[in-house]
Amino acid sequence: MPLAPAILDRLRSAVGQGHIRTDPDVCRAYGVDALKRGHPADAVATPASTREVQAIARVCHETRTPLVPRGGGTGYTGGAVPVHGGVVISMERMNRILEIDEGNLLAIVEPNVITGDLQDAVERLGLFYPPDPASLRQSVIGGNVAECAGGPRAFKYGVTKQYVLGLEAVLPNGSVIHTGGKVVKNVVGYDLTHLLVGSEGTLAIITKVILRLIPKPPVQAALRATFSSVAAAVNAVTEVIRARVIPAALEIIDEDSLDAVSHFLGGGALAPAGTGALLLIEVDGLAEQVSEEADRVARACRVAGATEVLRAGSETERQELWRVRRELSPSLRVISSLKFNHDVVVPKARVPELFDLVDEIRRRFSLRIPCFGHVGDGNIHVNIMVSPEDTAAIARAHEAERVLFEGVVRLEGSISGEHGIGFAKAAFLGLELSAETIAIMRAVKAAFDPHGILNPGKVF
Amino acid sequence: MPLAPAILDRLRSAVGQGHIRTDPDVCRAYGVDALKRGHPADAVATPASTREVQAIARVCHETRTPLVPRGGGTGYTGGAVPVHGGVVISMERMNRILEIDEGNLLAIVEPNVITGDLQDAVERLGLFYPPDPASLRQSVIGGNVAECAGGPRAFKYGVTKQYVLGLEAVLPNGSVIHTGGKVVKNVVGYDLTHLLVGSEGTLAIITKVILRLIPKPPVQAALRATFSSVAAAVNAVTEVIRARVIPAALEIIDEDSLDAVSHFLGGGALAPAGTGALLLIEVDGLAEQVSEEADRVARACRVAGATEVLRAGSETERQELWRVRRELSPSLRVISSLKFNHDVVVPKARVPELFDLVDEIRRRFSLRIPCFGHVGDGNIHVNIMVSPEDTAAIARAHEAERVLFEGVVRLEGSISGEHGIGFAKAAFLGLELSAETIAIMRAVKAAFDPHGILNPGKVF
Repeated sequence: MPLAPAILDRLRSAVGQGHIRTDPDVCRAYGVDALKRGHPADAVATPASTREVQAIARVCHETRTPLVPRGGGTGYTGGAVPVHGGVVISMERMNRILEIDEGNLLAIVEPNVITGDLQDAVERLGLFYPPDPASLRQSVIGGNVAECAGGPRAFKYGVTKQYVLGLEAVLPNGSVIHTGGKVVKNVVGYDLTHLLVGSEGTLAIITKVILRLIPKPPVQAALRATFSSVAAAVNAVTEVIRARVIPAALEIIDEDSLDAVSHFLGGGALAPAGTGALLLIEVDGLAEQVSEEADRVARACRVAGATEVLRAGSETERQELWRVRRELSPSLRVISSLKFNHDVVVPKARVPELFDLVDEIRRRFSLRIPCFGHVGDGNIHVNIMVSPEDTAAIARAHEAERVLFEGVVRLEGSISGEHGIGFAKAAFLGLELSAETIAIMRAVKAAFDPHGILNPGKVF
Repeated sequence: MPLAPAILDRLRSAVGQGHIRTDPDVCRAYGVDALKRGHPADAVATPASTREVQAIARVCHETRTPLVPRGGGTGYTGGAVPVHGGVVISMERMNRILEIDEGNLLAIVEPNVITGDLQDAVERLGLFYPPDPASLRQSVIGGNVAECAGGPRAFKYGVTKQYVLGLEAVLPNGSVIHTGGKVVKNVVGYDLTHLLVGSEGTLAIITKVILRLIPKPPVQAALRATFSSVAAAVNAVTEVIRARVIPAALEIIDEDSLDAVSHFLGGGALAPAGTGALLLIEVDGLAEQVSEEADRVARACRVAGATEVLRAGSETERQELWRVRRELSPSLRVISSLKFNHDVVVPKARVPELFDLVDEIRRRFSLRIPCFGHVGDGNIHVNIMVSPEDTAAIARAHEAERVLFEGVVRLEGSISGEHGIGFAKAAFLGLELSAETIAIMRAVKAAFDPHGILNPGKVF
């Protein structure tokens, strides 16, 4: 349904003629994200300043027009999709690194700075912004904040949440708030910063982000260990922690995933015969510490029954060890273009039970489900692969999803560790949260957005 | 104003006759915390279970009776004081460690577990709960969570917030919610966990806490470095970070504070003549790393112009280095029994400007103001010392407070890094937060507590 001309006029006068677009191609393109199930926008706004964001919000608030913030469009749960139409507010022109403050170890950025670009900029100064979602060359800080992006380094360094010191954000009614600030400790009033992080663009539009930085660890070492089973690999994780090492990355890749990569790379074996799971482990820090920690990791893996432990002796070898992880996504794309990509998380010690559950689902629904992920955090990417033409398989995949989520909740886990709920998982919220908990979340939503205009149809 | 007999009857039937007390001595004792400016409760309730907390909340909600949660009563801003009377709900009977889960590195506790007791219990298993408020032998986890307690180790390990994985909490209307859980990553719905942390008992009553643990660092090393000025000491902090070391503690003690301790201990010199500031630095981790990091710290301090660098060679020497820090509180108590104890925080690089500001305040208001604190976080305890009989000095101290807070905000800091707002600092909230930001916080408060019964008169 096109927006009323009066609304469009007001929007145009807020941000300028050329920054409100309504041509169908544009509205369709901005209506889709990495979930690939979209809905066209009625208009796309590209403001250049907080003031312009405020003006757009005011128009939408007063006219009860849906308003959907969009960053890099790399989300897997449709968080940026305007499911009720309305205005997509793309932050693409607000993409400057405003300040890198070496003395205070912080950066101030506009929301549409590409995460990888920020990392490059701070690393040139010997600093480090650890969160490393797989999409880091496409996704932007604003979206990372809205979704609380994770990544392999989260095990040692934490997720996006742990790096957001403060925010400037525009409320649905157009007023601007400042939360947190340039200090690492702040207990003045409620922690709105962390309420907004992960709120999936449903509470406020982020217009500025103050990020904590840390010194860049000078040295990395990578190891690869193979195991006959997932259970043995998880035991190795426990042994590593018992050895007092917190690796910078601790990734697991299961047999199905290894098969996919092997097939993609031409069929050669990637690991010893009988490998049921592979761990990629990276430690970082000062040279002496890294060397000692790598020794401890190798020992811990052997104690847990590793069939082989490789240790990169050079940067080339390190990149080679990581190759199998990097080739996972393209490899899975070759198996099938339709992937139900879930990011469930369970308490670490229950990861073997999660893999047992996936095995059961594979058999029961005759589905191919390669799994890999951040085992140190118990956060596993479960990829249900189906052919887009096979409607029967798609139906089975949907059934399998529900069984997976129910099982994860039974294992005291969470249905999403990284991707959020968006609209793709909204139907499952009640599996994990009680009616009372959802009710108070809805009350918080109503406090921020009484007319329900901001990113409607999401989360709940 | 005594509570109506009907209300008392309902409370008694909720938790049992003996667990609702109204005798004046008890009501006075539970009306005071470490701020030492109290107001008596009308009744003191001591529930033993979440169900009993719910029953009490329901009675207070329906009868619009103020309800004030209380943990260890060690807060410095009056957070546990029933300023409008009503029922103080002391969590003292809910004091069990329910579970220490070594496999998943977490603990589940009731709110009134003493923080130091939990630390002892997990350390016996080789695990570590880092947050270390000075009150850790008296304060309790529930209070630490409500206030987001910090401590010296926050620089490396973060504050309480970074260790809370999940909460069970009772809303003012008596319903119970569960936030977060046993997993370290969770992006399902809003992050109510971190909204409740630091909310000073104004949003919900915490009845259970799931805490993240980490492996205990096996080795510590302590260093002490003296400098001719605060600015030189802060330079040393920058040099330490540049040397890629994140110390477990990084404490500064100024000249006034050193004088107080020296006087308390009998007058001997505690540091070389001309010392303007002293740094206590502790590094921890694996033995090899600790030794290397201690070398780097010593070098960094010398580069920054340290007049002396001492390094503890044994545990006894380490305790000796920390002695001056430990004796600070008793030493200040000797100077004066009335202490306006503030916990301001500024961006680290602006700490010298903060000390300049304090110097100016000292001169302008003729006040003695020893300062010490967590310089790595820019979080400095500013102690305005006055005699309780000297009403003129007390008036000057109040003026000085406002000048301090205004200056801190000008330095892009925050008026509280650890103690919170309570009622003692409520008048200053508007110095730091805009009207729009306070308005949305109030809307959040109303979403949780529509009748304003929970800990009224606080924060706002």
